[in-house]
Amino acid sequence: MSETAQEMTGAEALVGTLADNGVTACFANPGTSEMHLVTALDREPRIRSVLCLFEGVATGAADGYARATGTPAMTLLHLGAGYMNGGANIHNARRAHTPMINVIGDHATYHTKYDAPLTSDIMGLAAPNSIWIKSVDKVSNAGKLASEAYAASFGPAPGPVSLILPADSAWEPGGSRGPKVTPPSLRAPDSNALDAAADALKAAEKPAVIVNGTALMGEGLVAASKLKAAGVRVLTDTFYPVQERGAGRFMPDRMQYFAEAAISDLEGSDLMVMAGTQTPAAFFAYPGKPSLLVPEGCKAMSVGSYEIDSAAALAALAEAIGASEAAPAMPLSLPDKPSGELDAFKVGMAIARHLPEGAIVSDDGVSNGLMTYIPTATARPHRWMMLTGGAIGQGFPLAVGAAIGSDKPVLCLSGDGAGMYTNQALWTMAREGLNVVNVVFVNHSYRILQIELHRTGAGNPGPAARSMLNLDGPEIDWVDLARSLGVEGHSAHTGEEMDAALERAFAEGGPHLIAAHVPG
Amino acid sequence: MSETAQEMTGAEALVGTLADNGVTACFANPGTSEMHLVTALDREPRIRSVLCLFEGVATGAADGYARATGTPAMTLLHLGAGYMNGGANIHNARRAHTPMINVIGDHATYHTKYDAPLTSDIMGLAAPNSIWIKSVDKVSNAGKLASEAYAASFGPAPGPVSLILPADSAWEPGGSRGPKVTPPSLRAPDSNALDAAADALKAAEKPAVIVNGTALMGEGLVAASKLKAAGVRVLTDTFYPVQERGAGRFMPDRMQYFAEAAISDLEGSDLMVMAGTQTPAAFFAYPGKPSLLVPEGCKAMSVGSYEIDSAAALAALAEAIGASEAAPAMPLSLPDKPSGELDAFKVGMAIARHLPEGAIVSDDGVSNGLMTYIPTATARPHRWMMLTGGAIGQGFPLAVGAAIGSDKPVLCLSGDGAGMYTNQALWTMAREGLNVVNVVFVNHSYRILQIELHRTGAGNPGPAARSMLNLDGPEIDWVDLARSLGVEGHSAHTGEEMDAALERAFAEGGPHLIAAHVPG
Repeated sequence: MSETAQEMTGAEALVGTLADNGVTACFANPGTSEMHLVTALDREPRIRSVLCLFEGVATGAADGYARATGTPAMTLLHLGAGYMNGGANIHNARRAHTPMINVIGDHATYHTKYDAPLTSDIMGLAAPNSIWIKSVDKVSNAGKLASEAYAASFGPAPGPVSLILPADSAWEPGGSRGPKVTPPSLRAPDSNALDAAADALKAAEKPAVIVNGTALMGEGLVAASKLKAAGVRVLTDTFYPVQERGAGRFMPDRMQYFAEAAISDLEGSDLMVMAGTQTPAAFFAYPGKPSLLVPEGCKAMSVGSYEIDSAAALAALAEAIGASEAAPAMPLSLPDKPSGELDAFKVGMAIARHLPEGAIVSDDGVSNGLMTYIPTATARPHRWMMLTGGAIGQGFPLAVGAAIGSDKPVLCLSGDGAGMYTNQALWTMAREGLNVVNVVFVNHSYRILQIELHRTGAGNPGPAARSMLNLDGPEIDWVDLARSLGVEGHSAHTGEEMDAALERAFAEGGPHLIAAHVPG
Repeated sequence: MSETAQEMTGAEALVGTLADNGVTACFANPGTSEMHLVTALDREPRIRSVLCLFEGVATGAADGYARATGTPAMTLLHLGAGYMNGGANIHNARRAHTPMINVIGDHATYHTKYDAPLTSDIMGLAAPNSIWIKSVDKVSNAGKLASEAYAASFGPAPGPVSLILPADSAWEPGGSRGPKVTPPSLRAPDSNALDAAADALKAAEKPAVIVNGTALMGEGLVAASKLKAAGVRVLTDTFYPVQERGAGRFMPDRMQYFAEAAISDLEGSDLMVMAGTQTPAAFFAYPGKPSLLVPEGCKAMSVGSYEIDSAAALAALAEAIGASEAAPAMPLSLPDKPSGELDAFKVGMAIARHLPEGAIVSDDGVSNGLMTYIPTATARPHRWMMLTGGAIGQGFPLAVGAAIGSDKPVLCLSGDGAGMYTNQALWTMAREGLNVVNVVFVNHSYRILQIELHRTGAGNPGPAARSMLNLDGPEIDWVDLARSLGVEGHSAHTGEEMDAALERAFAEGGPHLIAAHVPG
């Protein structure tokens, strides 16, 4: 790479700056306007460039990479259309508060006014899901803005940032690298809020703490277990970015998905303290049902939302109320080998038996995910990553990023409907030789919608409505689909087959896909 | 369906209004917030509901439907994330000036403030690519706004509109149908502009007319041929929404794709008159190359852009300059059967031989499309649809929509890179039993980018850059991929195999995919 300011292009300055700041992966789907970025990446050995055949794979992978490593990855997207293709998983990353640097190529600045076919309002399209967005207006700013973008992705609350690079700012010489910056940490919780919450916890008869963020990892879980031992119920959000769980870890309860179940579960609580999250709301509104998941008569208060270090908040609360004993951690307890006709719980049993120590789980299992979540509570220690933004199709991409960001084995759980959104990720798993075992729950339906149809009171479905919720004509052959993209596919119809397929897949390494045929 | 205003829900009012206005298809990927729309569609027999397993299929299909029929289809998208998944093909539709009604479900109005996981700024995300956008603020407006949306999709220049339907506006009673509206026609060209252009054409030595829109169909082509016979060169935009071509039709020239070739082709022209389009610009900017495709010394003028009836403009110009004789139409002339190792031109020969009369072609063939375009100039009469917005991944979805909108056989041309963006469309072809023959040019590369890398002067690619442009590890097995989604797949390595596969596929009907193995 050209090292002098005179010779360095804007693309080289941008890429070099991100590498200087510790970015080690770029998930890319380039086009003509990004060719100088592609060759700049070519000359930057510190960044691993990973080709994705659809931008939603690239952005979901960047999310998984950051959840596994704590540091942002870079994506390379082709103008507004490329950004939109990656948009649903950027939405999910925004809701996960994942740092992510989306580098979006644009036409040369002087070319935009001629309204060529790919011209679009990138700033307008990307702003709603970007916590920071700027365009490299001139080549000399490329490095400086890359430093800014890197720092901005850490927040106050982390999230996706957008750095637009017009083609002339990419290809012109005159770039120079921006500074290495120290990313801001999550904020310490406010001491007044902590004092108030501690007083309220002491006074409450049946208090609960709702947690997300750093409280779900390491010392955060230790502090959570102390609160639990002192009589404070600890619940996580229904969906969270990542949690350490399994043997040796304290496992908090989890907010229920359905609003009426969540309220019923919390019934009788007189205090809810939010730490690292906001007041929980129902995933959807339903006619005549409450939106906020706070029971009547229960006081809700907060010690800080996504911008705070919730682990520190729990530790402070535990100390303030004199909670020093930890509640028991989960024992290691593996289920018996499942047998007979397969169902989601038997899939979960097999997974609990074979999930390797230190594994990372990418959960986009939708209606079947819970049946795997429960039996893995006492499995070998692992990390669990969830769909926080509700836009299904995140599972495979997130697994790609987690596998590239870590040397850990990855398990991906996907519904068949969810998996179809981003099946292109399987190809990247094969190309990069990633240790990802994909379990697809094959029930040939959008089963969650069959449940939701009735819950929303939309009436009895006729043939047309039923056909909108079924994937059964034709049935998708996931084994063939995986093989066509270079991933070995297996099919399981019984507990025994599921158990054997998982054992073999983890033992062999590399990408595998197991089609788990479960009731619809 | 409940027919009284008191009993009709907002969802029923919206769907009924669109059906009253002649909308006959809904391409849908619903979620929980759209359940009342799903059951309203269930009770509306005039609208065919078509499930798509990814929203980019739904929006591309709506585009193809409208290009084949001239009337908009409805899509059903799930909040901001669903909109973004469909966004690239909405961008393409905007650039094609296709009428389209995107119905986007949203949270209940009272639920939004709680910031549930799928909450997003739908208005902000959708506005840049919508020529009209409104949200159904109260149930009583659902029908009225559906009428407005339908009319707005026709322009002045047609395009995609966005109608946001919050869940409470969908499920509450109190809706009533909006009026049947007469969609606005394209504008008549301005007579002063026509007079000035006619004078300039008469005075010019080497004039050219650049056309798009209605000039590419029926009487428009007849008028174009008269101009041609009178010494005016007629060229279409490089990419256009739809053109009638083949035997019996006048075939205009076509603007070249690469900027330097386009300029060179027009060299010596002293006048360019734009009709139904804007001044042509290079697809991308390249260092040191011009953006506008107007040679030096050539005067550029316009008789109106996408909002005018360009067929009427050409007819008026022909009359004004006294051009009454038509230039010869294309003869019917079919190539010999291709033989030997397959290449793109041999694919084109086989297609020219077997393309059925009246067929519709969806061209997302990228670097290989031209080799099919040339030999089909003298094939049986057909319509050709192109990628106008540059966001690849439109081919399969456009073909879905064209096949549902018409009873014509459809041929889809797709690059292998392009096809991977929206391979889910194959499943919808199988489910709906569509007469679509898909030809995928399999060269295991983003070949266009290999060309563009050099043209942009981005330098010699090293291994990382080359790997960003190659799809060869692993090779995608398109025959297996198609079969896994319910579509019969065939493989062709020779001209003979290609010819036989095409002949059989068109004869059998239903969806087929032919993997055409061409040099990379």
